[in-house]
Amino acid sequence: MQSYISVRRHFSAAHRLCNPEWSPEENQRIYGTCSNPNGHGHNYTLEITVCGKIDPETGMILDMKTLKELIDDAVIARVDHKHLNHDVPFLDGIVPTAENLAAAVWKILDPLIQEGALHEVRVYESDRNIAIVRR
Amino acid sequence: MQSYISVRRHFSAAHRLCNPEWSPEENQRIYGTCSNPNGHGHNYTLEITVCGKIDPETGMILDMKTLKELIDDAVIARVDHKHLNHDVPFLDGIVPTAENLAAAVWKILDPLIQEGALHEVRVYESDRNIAIVRR
Amino acid sequence: MQSYISVRRHFSAAHRLCNPEWSPEENQRIYGTCSNPNGHGHNYTLEITVCGKIDPETGMILDMKTLKELIDDAVIARVDHKHLNHDVPFLDGIVPTAENLAAAVWKILDPLIQEGALHEVRVYESDRNIAIVRR
Amino acid sequence: MQSYISVRRHFSAAHRLCNPEWSPEENQRIYGTCSNPNGHGHNYTLEITVCGKIDPETGMILDMKTLKELIDDAVIARVDHKHLNHDVPFLDGIVPTAENLAAAVWKILDPLIQEGALHEVRVYESDRNIAIVRR
Amino acid sequence: MQSYISVRRHFSAAHRLCNPEWSPEENQRIYGTCSNPNGHGHNYTLEITVCGKIDPETGMILDMKTLKELIDDAVIARVDHKHLNHDVPFLDGIVPTAENLAAAVWKILDPLIQEGALHEVRVYESDRNIAIVRR
Amino acid sequence: MQSYISVRRHFSAAHRLCNPEWSPEENQRIYGTCSNPNGHGHNYTLEITVCGKIDPETGMILDMKTLKELIDDAVIARVDHKHLNHDVPFLDGIVPTAENLAAAVWKILDPLIQEGALHEVRVYESDRNIAIVRR
Repeated sequence: MQSYISVRRHFSAAHRLCNPEWSPEENQRIYGTCSNPNGHGHNYTLEITVCGKIDPETGMILDMKTLKELIDDAVIARVDHKHLNHDVPFLDGIVPTAENLAAAVWKILDPLIQEGALHEVRVYESDRNIAIVRR
Repeated sequence: MQSYISVRRHFSAAHRLCNPEWSPEENQRIYGTCSNPNGHGHNYTLEITVCGKIDPETGMILDMKTLKELIDDAVIARVDHKHLNHDVPFLDGIVPTAENLAAAVWKILDPLIQEGALHEVRVYESDRNIAIVRR
Repeated sequence: MQSYISVRRHFSAAHRLCNPEWSPEENQRIYGTCSNPNGHGHNYTLEITVCGKIDPETGMILDMKTLKELIDDAVIARVDHKHLNHDVPFLDGIVPTAENLAAAVWKILDPLIQEGALHEVRVYESDRNIAIVRR
Repeated sequence: MQSYISVRRHFSAAHRLCNPEWSPEENQRIYGTCSNPNGHGHNYTLEITVCGKIDPETGMILDMKTLKELIDDAVIARVDHKHLNHDVPFLDGIVPTAENLAAAVWKILDPLIQEGALHEVRVYESDRNIAIVRR
Repeated sequence: MQSYISVRRHFSAAHRLCNPEWSPEENQRIYGTCSNPNGHGHNYTLEITVCGKIDPETGMILDMKTLKELIDDAVIARVDHKHLNHDVPFLDGIVPTAENLAAAVWKILDPLIQEGALHEVRVYESDRNIAIVRR
Repeated sequence: MQSYISVRRHFSAAHRLCNPEWSPEENQRIYGTCSNPNGHGHNYTLEITVCGKIDPETGMILDMKTLKELIDDAVIARVDHKHLNHDVPFLDGIVPTAENLAAAVWKILDPLIQEGALHEVRVYESDRNIAIVRR
């Protein structure tokens, strides 16, 4: 029997799917309207799941409030109300697809989770488009 | 007793709150992070309500599918996967707040609704921020 | 200053949009796939709003639990897990559009609300298609 | 044509429906399980709508961020993670039904809204139980 | 570390739970109101998850738009606005429970996913009833 | 290929995070406002997933209606409209965190699932705070 907690955080950001090594035509062919030069945007939801043992004293794997603050400091503050292609150093040189964003968030959070272990990062671009990275 | 139908449509767009007649500092003071130069974005929901009589033959005020196509052609196709400050002629010279967007959509749709009459335009920037224009 | 309560109830039903006085071609032309002979279906949500004075002793306009039971007995029990075209006497001779369904529910509930007065009936065929009848 | 903005805020609270002037049996008869002595609780959503003119310079009726801060200071901070029957001075002597809570929030917010005017207070006890106060 | 994408699609359909080899009484005993002869219906949600490697050039496992088109062509077009017991050849001879529907969708999609591999099919009959098939 | 069904049930309850062996200051330090003496509350959602083989005759792993009744009898009736610290014998001596609640529900339901096997218990305290126990 394994235990987990998940918390959800929200942020609003602009992005554009564009591989700078390709021609505009190639970007348009691969990414369609997601490649429009001025970008578009989303209300993103980030769902972070941590796996661990329930501490018998506190009844918690890890305090959900602490986990939210950690996510807010390490991720949300760096992406909220930003343009993911221009304003976010941890995405430099990365096409900001939902998949790449999930992988980048994993790399940031994994070493920061001290109690329990990061189990899953979910990025909802919308309620129809979801990317997941899981151990 | 009055009858209405409402339909909801979705689009993803970038925007930036910025009055070009103000200094950067003034924009930052009024709009805060919503004024970040590279913009941010949202999954917008547009909820359009039409008031009218239920046709006794069809049982409809106005065919919801027709209404959706009208909205998609007149509004969604012009804002989806766009940057509201740069790519949308009907917003030229308008700060793209949710309120102004609702008012602009009203102006577009009002003359196009032939059966019944436009009653309300709702713009959801997120499930926490809503602007409404109503007759 | 006016006070209201709203409650929401759910039911699952099949329906088909079809005016029996028209030819199959005419039904297909007006209703499209909604006119497919074997019908389709929805998870409907019914949102009922009652307007009234807050009783200073109970702090309620009308007990929400009582209102739900009234709706369940008078409406939900007659439409849940039913085919609206075949199994629902109060819809006999009526094309079961969302608009007609809202109007039919209004006629049933209006005389039954004793404390306060029925203010609005909303029928959600989905989270994108809504019909409203309001006093 | 009239313009509005709505914002939504969330809080978690315990409450118990109980008129202290009634016997336990009478409270049980009127309020049922909502009258259980130790109380129960909800994730409440507060939806506040303000009516006003869109300022042609800012494109806003009232800054949504300012409105949220005002609601958070005047209401949310006083009810979040509280027991509505014991911890909330503005509800002293009031049975904390959703209706009474909406009316009490109206009384607090109405004099505080300086730009535009308070139009509606909605209290969602759950997504099935809603109380509304409207001008 | 494993990567996935999930997309959600919606369709509206009628169905009836009925094993044609059983008596009407037996069907009623096993399926209850789900066995009503004229059927009922749902707004179904299909959530499809694909597992794979993130392509370092595109930043995608598989283009979500391509995946949606594949699902729409292979599944949604064959079930939307249909009666699952009468109009859907791939369900012939199958009781259209959510479980059987998920398994049937798996069989259709599994050979069609070329980049990555089908990982999970979820069928939401409502937000309370979910069937899942997973590799 | 493995099959599962999930059902969701809702309940409203009060709780307070408090380890009775700690001082009030220690409880405040660890649990913050969640430790307020009079408690607060939530609209909880319980999502129960059962793993099993789809019966070829019924098309079901386990009748979802039967599963819901089992959950309602064994869990929901004991927690709905209750205070989790005072009114729920199966939580005696347990700090009612979401994690502990999920584990306690697992212990109750695991021996009761006869067809298939309990796979996962999810407790949603809100749409932002989730605890999971999985085999």
